[in-house]
Amino acid sequence: MSQERRLPGNADNHPGAIALHERPLVLDVDGTLILADSEQWNEPRPLLGAAEFLTALREMGRPFLLLTNGTARTPDDYVERLQAAGLDVRPGELLTPAVVAAELLVHHYPGEPVFVLGDNGTRQPLAARGIRLLDRSEATAARIVFVGWAPALTYEDLTAAARAIWQGAEFWTAVTARALAAQGGRAPAMGGAIMAAVAHVTATQPRLIGKPAPEALEVAARSLRTPLHELVMIGDDLEIDVSMARRAGCSAILVRTGTDRDAPADAADLSVENLSELLSLIKGNRRHYS
Amino acid sequence: MSQERRLPGNADNHPGAIALHERPLVLDVDGTLILADSEQWNEPRPLLGAAEFLTALREMGRPFLLLTNGTARTPDDYVERLQAAGLDVRPGELLTPAVVAAELLVHHYPGEPVFVLGDNGTRQPLAARGIRLLDRSEATAARIVFVGWAPALTYEDLTAAARAIWQGAEFWTAVTARALAAQGGRAPAMGGAIMAAVAHVTATQPRLIGKPAPEALEVAARSLRTPLHELVMIGDDLEIDVSMARRAGCSAILVRTGTDRDAPADAADLSVENLSELLSLIKGNRRHYS
Repeated sequence: MSQERRLPGNADNHPGAIALHERPLVLDVDGTLILADSEQWNEPRPLLGAAEFLTALREMGRPFLLLTNGTARTPDDYVERLQAAGLDVRPGELLTPAVVAAELLVHHYPGEPVFVLGDNGTRQPLAARGIRLLDRSEATAARIVFVGWAPALTYEDLTAAARAIWQGAEFWTAVTARALAAQGGRAPAMGGAIMAAVAHVTATQPRLIGKPAPEALEVAARSLRTPLHELVMIGDDLEIDVSMARRAGCSAILVRTGTDRDAPADAADLSVENLSELLSLIKGNRRHYS
Repeated sequence: MSQERRLPGNADNHPGAIALHERPLVLDVDGTLILADSEQWNEPRPLLGAAEFLTALREMGRPFLLLTNGTARTPDDYVERLQAAGLDVRPGELLTPAVVAAELLVHHYPGEPVFVLGDNGTRQPLAARGIRLLDRSEATAARIVFVGWAPALTYEDLTAAARAIWQGAEFWTAVTARALAAQGGRAPAMGGAIMAAVAHVTATQPRLIGKPAPEALEVAARSLRTPLHELVMIGDDLEIDVSMARRAGCSAILVRTGTDRDAPADAADLSVENLSELLSLIKGNRRHYS
């Protein structure tokens, strides 16, 4: 582990350190690329160096993906929002827990029907991969019940989900979060609330698909055609981003622009003030450190 | 404790036993007086001896109240339903957790505003006692957030409830149940689901007002103008009815017509097959046992 925490410049000489000049990257969104009000969709503020960072990655031909925990919107919606903030992100470059779930289903549960407690942001990525989504009336035939963000939980949907789980369906959730930081103060995480309601009623704990579950990094590695341990996760949250990387056996870089601004330097394999500093390290990697 | 479990006929000679011929009674409803499908409101089936039992209590001038855990309807709705099943129950003779909450609020939180996550069955008993119920827009001023049955949980209501609790409001719930037995199989307890959602988001455990919390028996004792320990609770559920009586220091009679048909004889202070047998014991109390 001590090798993992060495400065990036050591990468050339020490295989355990982060080889910043060659590894595929997975970037968190909120607190890493943008700061936004979770309740106000529009006008997120790009963080220092974020736009230049993505542009430089593309120019260097460095493979990367973005990973957010949201299921309130579709991946294309999130991409458009980032584009509107001046970030060069393209369709297919952003993973949500619904995208991760879709990949897990396609590869490990082919043909199995799913009952979704969630809105279009949860449903669309599954439908796009040809997964059979059940109506409420046929929910008891579900192999999996998948909870994401929804504007409300109705008794009818809760009953359908509970009966499916009582009959043996697996219980997956995009999120377990309690609350989100928003400009207007703390805001409840509705997906987490629905998850808790279903968990209470069925006395069943869900399988978490969103961060910090390592599944997203497995899907990212497959998509980037790289071995999992080669991935470097970049994020602002120790309990979510860095923890996920550790669970998956990947390296983790903490950016101090979001949740964990005051984390100790050794909390991740590398800590930087912002993406601007990280870009300097990547560009100057061989020159400054080797 | 052993005295408490003696046969009722011993009451005349042993002060610890249940004096069946004189104590005020609190009766559970579902599984004790009726069997019903929780999803089908109409046509509950009265249980053996239930109609005769209530009629006899009234003829004997024996004080009694009914206590259910439901907040999906108003107390008057529940009374009408029991009347339709042939039971002589009258308005004001049935307590729900919302009635209990209203009494607690009037006596211990006079004038304090309440934010209700619940439908009319939860709201009406509070409004009837003059308690100030807050709209969603003013929920952060609430002293208490009270969860009961509602047909849905919306993000807006969850946000209002969470912000009130984050700002210091107490969190009360009518119910913590996971599910209810229904003719169509198990059905989720929506009040319990909403409770769990709020508890998760706020990381706060609620104060339970419904059974088996002893508060209902305190309110019943006040209403029946009797010392709490004089009350005898009659119900079909060990974990709910008998447990509540124990917590309140009251005697408990188990009727084997509902949830705990196979409980051992000493699980309560007295166990009977049905209310018909219990009525015989009460009527024949002095004659048969003293």
